Amino acid sequence: MGPRPQEAMGPIVTLTTDFGVEDAYAGIMKGVILSIAPKARIVDLCHGISPQNVVAGALALEAAVDCFPPGTIHVAVVDPGVGTERAAVAVQGTRHTYVGPDNGVLTLALEADPVVRAVSLTNPRFHRVTVSATFHGRDIFAPAAGSLAAGADLGEMGEPLASLTPIPLPSPRTTGGAVEAQVIHVDHFGNLITNLRAQELKRLKEEWGPADLVTHVGFARIPSISRTYADVAPGSLVAYVGSSNRLEIGVRNGSAARLLGVGVGSSVVVAHS
Amino acid sequence: MGPRPQEAMGPIVTLTTDFGVEDAYAGIMKGVILSIAPKARIVDLCHGISPQNVVAGALALEAAVDCFPPGTIHVAVVDPGVGTERAAVAVQGTRHTYVGPDNGVLTLALEADPVVRAVSLTNPRFHRVTVSATFHGRDIFAPAAGSLAAGADLGEMGEPLASLTPIPLPSPRTTGGAVEAQVIHVDHFGNLITNLRAQELKRLKEEWGPADLVTHVGFARIPSISRTYADVAPGSLVAYVGSSNRLEIGVRNGSAARLLGVGVGSSVVVAHS
Amino acid sequence: MGPRPQEAMGPIVTLTTDFGVEDAYAGIMKGVILSIAPKARIVDLCHGISPQNVVAGALALEAAVDCFPPGTIHVAVVDPGVGTERAAVAVQGTRHTYVGPDNGVLTLALEADPVVRAVSLTNPRFHRVTVSATFHGRDIFAPAAGSLAAGADLGEMGEPLASLTPIPLPSPRTTGGAVEAQVIHVDHFGNLITNLRAQELKRLKEEWGPADLVTHVGFARIPSISRTYADVAPGSLVAYVGSSNRLEIGVRNGSAARLLGVGVGSSVVVAHS
Repeated sequence: MGPRPQEAMGPIVTLTTDFGVEDAYAGIMKGVILSIAPKARIVDLCHGISPQNVVAGALALEAAVDCFPPGTIHVAVVDPGVGTERAAVAVQGTRHTYVGPDNGVLTLALEADPVVRAVSLTNPRFHRVTVSATFHGRDIFAPAAGSLAAGADLGEMGEPLASLTPIPLPSPRTTGGAVEAQVIHVDHFGNLITNLRAQELKRLKEEWGPADLVTHVGFARIPSISRTYADVAPGSLVAYVGSSNRLEIGVRNGSAARLLGVGVGSSVVVAHS
Repeated sequence: MGPRPQEAMGPIVTLTTDFGVEDAYAGIMKGVILSIAPKARIVDLCHGISPQNVVAGALALEAAVDCFPPGTIHVAVVDPGVGTERAAVAVQGTRHTYVGPDNGVLTLALEADPVVRAVSLTNPRFHRVTVSATFHGRDIFAPAAGSLAAGADLGEMGEPLASLTPIPLPSPRTTGGAVEAQVIHVDHFGNLITNLRAQELKRLKEEWGPADLVTHVGFARIPSISRTYADVAPGSLVAYVGSSNRLEIGVRNGSAARLLGVGVGSSVVVAHS
Repeated sequence: MGPRPQEAMGPIVTLTTDFGVEDAYAGIMKGVILSIAPKARIVDLCHGISPQNVVAGALALEAAVDCFPPGTIHVAVVDPGVGTERAAVAVQGTRHTYVGPDNGVLTLALEADPVVRAVSLTNPRFHRVTVSATFHGRDIFAPAAGSLAAGADLGEMGEPLASLTPIPLPSPRTTGGAVEAQVIHVDHFGNLITNLRAQELKRLKEEWGPADLVTHVGFARIPSISRTYADVAPGSLVAYVGSSNRLEIGVRNGSAARLLGVGVGSSVVVAHS
């Protein structure tokens, strides 16, 4: 495991939100956290999640699991249900701790970092004195993260939760010699991230034999799966396993989303040639 | 007051600018501050203020007053008058210290955190060696913030100022049974923030009696004031008191600015039904 | 030189990428760095470099040279050649240390901060355990920066490099009584940054005598070179030496790029009137 930097240095608290960069909403959360936990080291993971895009938030958190030191506290505020009865939760995983709305934004991270215990953040002692009905990032999630960073016991923050709301993410469907996947995210470069994971792709390759796998997306046909962008000519489409261990479609030095005119929800079919 | 984390840990310095994320302008300021105050803990409050939008900058700083630990140094660089005779100032409030151009960007924060003393940043000892005529963020404001974070006395940084330039913000006008407010900011989600404060709304409610308050904005009529987005159906307009304690107009899971086609300066009329 | 904050406080590591704000790519790099160097103080220099815009990345780093404390580690990931044979490098300058792809992104910084030694990051001991073919920011550059921040010797990280790939940046051409420069960057405000440096402009002035210098750009003619935006009327074009010590074209309280409809690569001719 190595040294536990968290203890000597103050815990790392990451923030993932759909608050964008035009307003101080994300910055305000940092002030709340630092007011409670002066030693916390705040790290912006991502604030440009498209508004209310729970899947994009879930992918950001998932990517953080393997890359941050053990004991990191991750706060996710992508919260289309603020003001509804959706729970606010804190979840201790085997490696990190997570704070956010119970709407599936934590699902993918917790698949990689299994739940040890989870609570609903109902104890008002760990809320801001006045809780607004529109900004739980400031009034519930940041105070919870700050309290955890200051050493509070997660168990005191609310009632135990037996289960969490899963993310409504489609699964690829395998039918005979093809698998139909979906685009679940378009990244900053216009790369299309699908829900087809590397291990499933590997399994299909073993089942289908040595022939190349052909990918169909929009009106395009990509004749094989490459290792990286540079395996094709500049401007060409390329299918590859991306950094999130899922099949992605890109354009070398370009944008697949723009070239193909496809986006989240679009079908991506992989078949043996 | 609680513990003064600032002393043990190095002061918090927040940055609020309209520098955007495409250039290193904001990052450069961080280097200047850390060169002078190695222990400073720099916090990005907001860098996506729309270019030269002093009101948006003022709202960001206002939101920070209640949420950061006492002793925080806030630097605001939204500066359409760079190179003119507008003063560069440092202001000590009762809770925080502020650095920025004297163009009203500090007004709203200082209404919540009254001025103890203010100076014009005229002492060249606290400037960068060479001061450009276009980038006072790097050459005047960051050095001032760094010096304050390193323990400099604000009083040595320039001449005392008896008054500061106020922000040119309109006030709502009450006429008989209605109040005419204005949209003063559109946030990242397309919510319309008005200049009608919660306490004024409360006063009107008391004056006008128990009937619902009707809000007129663009071509729309919103029949009552709600507590939160979730009080209306998805896609519907909602009027509510937002996190800045002002009347806001939103669309549940959508953008009011886009739906209504209105923006900053648009009229919002609240009347009793 | 003053105190060496780096030793007491943990080194500063800046990040400059074209990863944007929509994804966690930049945030993930921070986790990797903090996992290796818990004391590192990570500073976002800029993440909104336009995709694969090596020149914009180079300008961001150049601006950092004079403004960060000695010993800062700068990581730049603007990497259109990821997956090709382009080298990944770490370079020790006289003041700072740099990590990035060998594609010219470091050129301008290293002109201001001459190379002491450079290595190709080939030693797998300083890579992430599994190196992807698409995300060297996470798998090669962040581990290298983290290792340097934790005290690793740059010399152990790979083979020495005798030379680095220069940036493919055009130079202004002087012909008789005029110099033809190019726009090399458009900043967030729509200012046009050219490749004509202040010292070259000064030399021309001395050569050409006291008459005003006229700037031609797009369909516009700017009759003289000003000190700052405020030297012209609001909405007017202004030519001035900007914060990067290059000739820039702006519009006071507006966008020159939008007004003129010009951008990177456009010609800017300066002549004596």
